[in-house]
Amino acid sequence: MFIGSQDGAQRFCMRFFEIHPGGHTPRHSHDWEHEIFIHEGHGSAYKEGRWVPITQGDALFIPPNEEHQIKNTSDKPLRFVCLIPAGPAEL
Amino acid sequence: MFIGSQDGAQRFCMRFFEIHPGGHTPRHSHDWEHEIFIHEGHGSAYKEGRWVPITQGDALFIPPNEEHQIKNTSDKPLRFVCLIPAGPAEL
Repeated sequence: MFIGSQDGAQRFCMRFFEIHPGGHTPRHSHDWEHEIFIHEGHGSAYKEGRWVPITQGDALFIPPNEEHQIKNTSDKPLRFVCLIPAGPAEL
Repeated sequence: MFIGSQDGAQRFCMRFFEIHPGGHTPRHSHDWEHEIFIHEGHGSAYKEGRWVPITQGDALFIPPNEEHQIKNTSDKPLRFVCLIPAGPAEL
């Protein structure tokens, strides 16, 4: 957790993730949204039923309940921040 | 606006800023919080009454009503994302 309730953030939280080359997040969905900013590297994001390329400087909005996944298709780390609403999702 | 209500973001919004070398934001405060992620470059942030160095990969939380300012003290662009709650602050 980069910024969360322990910092006084009452409404939304910032997390930081690094995916190693060849790695990926689980494909899943949940009832809260994501706002993602790609800090470094590139790869692919699954959203709206298809894979789209992502690269550093890109922003992605994942609406609630939308199935999504992120994978690193490169040979360098993929680093991104992912914002979520505060509350149960922060746990 | 990177991600806002036009994208379906109901609760918080992502903006992107670039400050040129020598530039700075106004020093101000408001009743909503900021969550800031430094994407590229470095500079200084005024928060809690003092200047602190900021560099790419850093995250900053600015609580509501705290006076703050960001300046680029380098000779390259300073680029960051700044998250705010949705609502009047998005205007």
